[in-house]
Amino acid sequence: MAPVTSTPATTSSYSITMRLHTTPDNSHIGTVATAISGAGGVVTAIDVAESRHDRLVLDVTCSASNADHSQALVDAVSALDGVTVHKVSDRTFLLHLGGKIEVSSKVSLKTRDDLSMAYTPGVGRVSRALAENPEDVPRLTIKGNSVAVVTDGSAVLGLGNIGPGAALPVMEGKAALFKRFADIDAWPICLATQDTDEIVKAVEMIAPGFGGINLEDISAPRCFEIEARLREKLDIPVFHDDQHGTAIVVLAALTNALRVVDKQLETVRVVVSGAGAAGTAIVNLLLAAGVTDAVVVDKIGCLVSTDETLPPAHRELASRTNPRQVTGSLQDALVEADVFIGVSAPGILQGEWIPTMGRDPIVFALANPDPEIDPNVASQYAKVVASGRSDYPNQINNVLAFPGVFRGLLDARASEVTQEALLRAAEAIALVVTDEELNPSFIIPSVFDPAVPKAVAAAIAGEEHVKI
Amino acid sequence: MAPVTSTPATTSSYSITMRLHTTPDNSHIGTVATAISGAGGVVTAIDVAESRHDRLVLDVTCSASNADHSQALVDAVSALDGVTVHKVSDRTFLLHLGGKIEVSSKVSLKTRDDLSMAYTPGVGRVSRALAENPEDVPRLTIKGNSVAVVTDGSAVLGLGNIGPGAALPVMEGKAALFKRFADIDAWPICLATQDTDEIVKAVEMIAPGFGGINLEDISAPRCFEIEARLREKLDIPVFHDDQHGTAIVVLAALTNALRVVDKQLETVRVVVSGAGAAGTAIVNLLLAAGVTDAVVVDKIGCLVSTDETLPPAHRELASRTNPRQVTGSLQDALVEADVFIGVSAPGILQGEWIPTMGRDPIVFALANPDPEIDPNVASQYAKVVASGRSDYPNQINNVLAFPGVFRGLLDARASEVTQEALLRAAEAIALVVTDEELNPSFIIPSVFDPAVPKAVAAAIAGEEHVKI
Repeated sequence: MAPVTSTPATTSSYSITMRLHTTPDNSHIGTVATAISGAGGVVTAIDVAESRHDRLVLDVTCSASNADHSQALVDAVSALDGVTVHKVSDRTFLLHLGGKIEVSSKVSLKTRDDLSMAYTPGVGRVSRALAENPEDVPRLTIKGNSVAVVTDGSAVLGLGNIGPGAALPVMEGKAALFKRFADIDAWPICLATQDTDEIVKAVEMIAPGFGGINLEDISAPRCFEIEARLREKLDIPVFHDDQHGTAIVVLAALTNALRVVDKQLETVRVVVSGAGAAGTAIVNLLLAAGVTDAVVVDKIGCLVSTDETLPPAHRELASRTNPRQVTGSLQDALVEADVFIGVSAPGILQGEWIPTMGRDPIVFALANPDPEIDPNVASQYAKVVASGRSDYPNQINNVLAFPGVFRGLLDARASEVTQEALLRAAEAIALVVTDEELNPSFIIPSVFDPAVPKAVAAAIAGEEHVKI
Repeated sequence: MAPVTSTPATTSSYSITMRLHTTPDNSHIGTVATAISGAGGVVTAIDVAESRHDRLVLDVTCSASNADHSQALVDAVSALDGVTVHKVSDRTFLLHLGGKIEVSSKVSLKTRDDLSMAYTPGVGRVSRALAENPEDVPRLTIKGNSVAVVTDGSAVLGLGNIGPGAALPVMEGKAALFKRFADIDAWPICLATQDTDEIVKAVEMIAPGFGGINLEDISAPRCFEIEARLREKLDIPVFHDDQHGTAIVVLAALTNALRVVDKQLETVRVVVSGAGAAGTAIVNLLLAAGVTDAVVVDKIGCLVSTDETLPPAHRELASRTNPRQVTGSLQDALVEADVFIGVSAPGILQGEWIPTMGRDPIVFALANPDPEIDPNVASQYAKVVASGRSDYPNQINNVLAFPGVFRGLLDARASEVTQEALLRAAEAIALVVTDEELNPSFIIPSVFDPAVPKAVAAAIAGEEHVKI
């Protein structure tokens, strides 16, 4: 096996299935498995699809670490004597065929009677009742449980501005997660515009059928204005997950990381690398939670309020942060800092800088898919390390927040989402980790812990934080 | 039993369940059933919910013909000695609680591996591939199978302008039917505007995520312009069901009615009552199918092209119809006519006018929920009668058309829907009824006949009309 720090772990997101034709000799199975392992792949399944007197047909499924690695595995198998690679299927693409979500009827439509209740003429009575009592719409329609996942495709994952059509698989995935983790019916709305006014108008137009709006992958600084204007106009909650979902989970993780190192939010020095949507929202929530010393570092260095060359959004951010007026580079900002939070770019944090931080450094390297520093390298210097990756401990994953947030908003029939609710949500996630469970490698619960969305929903709805 | 012609049949769309508390005497069950029958209701279920020494709790479900009738049944039961009506539940409203549709994930999301394929990081590779090859979007996303059911709530069923929120149950019902009859994933989009420009713009904005647009319950004449402009702008098919769905099914039914009376489309005289969305589309499709003598009658009487007071849409319609320049009332137009098609208002056709029509009159009284003439009355005079009601033979129901139409369009990855395709769809529906099955009471197949959507889809996609 290659050492972990030089070769990233294999992942099923790069899983492939090779259909192999071989001579009718079972020894090929072992040879193929050995070749794949030798090339750093992990064989997860070997099926004999056909066995004839003149040949064997094998389906071999294996995980690679990336696309180049997949190709290297295919090459390794192709090089074997008596083995032909007939076809290579990519499991991730196969899974996306036909889309990942579907609409189902919750009511039976087998008989004429069924039709006459779910559709005409029966539905007419329900519609007439709703025309007279509009406040009943959420109770008698999907509006009570539906969320629009809205994007313009301008900042999709780490891929940038790939447009609304290419963004659709991500929005579908989000909708699937909404259902999986909070039983919410979410539908992707991919907009054919990147104009702020048009986006606001389009969302305003479609709002009557939804109980909430989840903005997704819209680039900064337009996302700030779009969200603010929609919150002003709509009577349903508007939540930009890239901002607030991330901020909630970061605050939850930081709360627990500080429990580990026995420090207080109010007195730690925090360096946030990245002043985009996520960075801005994280800073805002940290300040609301009690953080007093946050320094935001962008490509050009530390943001200081005296710098009149900053764009408006950054000046505003600087005016509320950096009380010691720290200037210079990220390296400069890190000296004596307690916490590094990166939502910026791959590889910008060097391990050697971490020892210049204060006692028991906390490093959150959250850039996706490639973090600011390899978490394995960071853990050689820092006391607590978190990243966005699923193959290291302490994964900071928005899935911990957004399903429960909207569950709580819908349950409460909320018309808006407040910063106090976001703070309660972060606290609820942090509290899911008990004192007994808490340690440097477990500051945040698993995304599959069913207690998380329930606790978040209860917190958002303003109920007591009952540990479930 | 009350005679059918004076009391409309009971329907499960007005089905109620009464919870009754009675003294512990089983004879009450018979008394209650008798009281309901005596008041014209139909008992469909009696459940003993609780039996104690001091009382019985009964759940009695029964169908009424309308809301007043429901109340009359409750009153009849309330009047019985020893019986108290504790609660009345309306089955149609119960069925609508929480909405009628839901979004489900088609992919497993149980493990980290599942997440890493359906969401990040795996989904990123699919999005990147789609950014490079946009033509693959329908294949790898729900766009290949999704339809937006778009309304502004301006002309909902027979209820008029009740707005987008109150329209939502109808759009949900439509989405449920799309799934039930053609496995299409449709989502309701209820717009917060009734401005033509804003509707066009909103639909244009949301189009990237859908494979088709089904306009629904948008009032005339705005619906004509909205549809025309969207067809111009979008690269996916746009179909206004109130127009074209109705027209397809009417043409199919008329084709078969003419088979029954042995007349030809090209030579019959057709009177269409109603010059709104449905009437206009019916006339257009009939003309395309070969009808040469159609007279459109509106509230003011027969539309004639020489009438300069007509609004533009009606003048245009008159210019392509009424070759004999018939003037006067509906009664005047019907003299010597072969076919009456009503998509207008309840009760406007008097039975006595039908004998003034030509040999073997055909009467389609399609106003919903109350037709232009009671079908039972019409059948005393006409050879073939059809209506929109499910409690008479020959129900003209759009469900026969729209699921198959969109199935065919999506299967063919069509960018538009042509009039030729609509004609083929109508022919396909007509041909589902064999010569052996055809008779005056069976000119149109059942909405539950699985051959219908398949035949329509094949016809729309341009394949041969294979009888399945």
